[in-house]
Amino acid sequence: MAFVAHIDVSLKAGILDPQGGEIERALPALGYSNVSDVRVGKTIRLVVDAPDAAGAEAQVVEMCDRLLANPVIESYSVDLEPVATGSSV
Amino acid sequence: MAFVAHIDVSLKAGILDPQGGEIERALPALGYSNVSDVRVGKTIRLVVDAPDAAGAEAQVVEMCDRLLANPVIESYSVDLEPVATGSSV
Repeated sequence: MAFVAHIDVSLKAGILDPQGGEIERALPALGYSNVSDVRVGKTIRLVVDAPDAAGAEAQVVEMCDRLLANPVIESYSVDLEPVATGSSV
Repeated sequence: MAFVAHIDVSLKAGILDPQGGEIERALPALGYSNVSDVRVGKTIRLVVDAPDAAGAEAQVVEMCDRLLANPVIESYSVDLEPVATGSSV
């Protein structure tokens, strides 16, 4: 059975976010001076084939820890939803 | 009034995603050969001060078009929620 996993990876609180800081510095130059606390993260969407949802989620969490996120400085959340087998949504 | 905007920026369908392709090539080497259709996007979380939600959303959409996303190759979605004034959630 195929599952679509939506993974949201973001820097932990207190970790410096240079990309967000750069956006925050750029916005006033474009006339937006009412914006603050800009943080940038990444999302990963993938399709995983697994016998059941629990197995798929366990595997995605393991992949996050090993490759997709850096657990030292990043936290992540996983959302899983089933798709019809063979679909590539 | 302050609003937290969650912006989700992803490559449009059909646009080559080298980062996603690289992850897809790396996963089998780690023993995950049941993963496909990997796509990577980014999220931006920011706080905007605006008189009302409609104004805040209009401004965030404008910022996406001008700076945060590349409308030629990327699509984005905006989620807005109010926060107590002065909070930096």
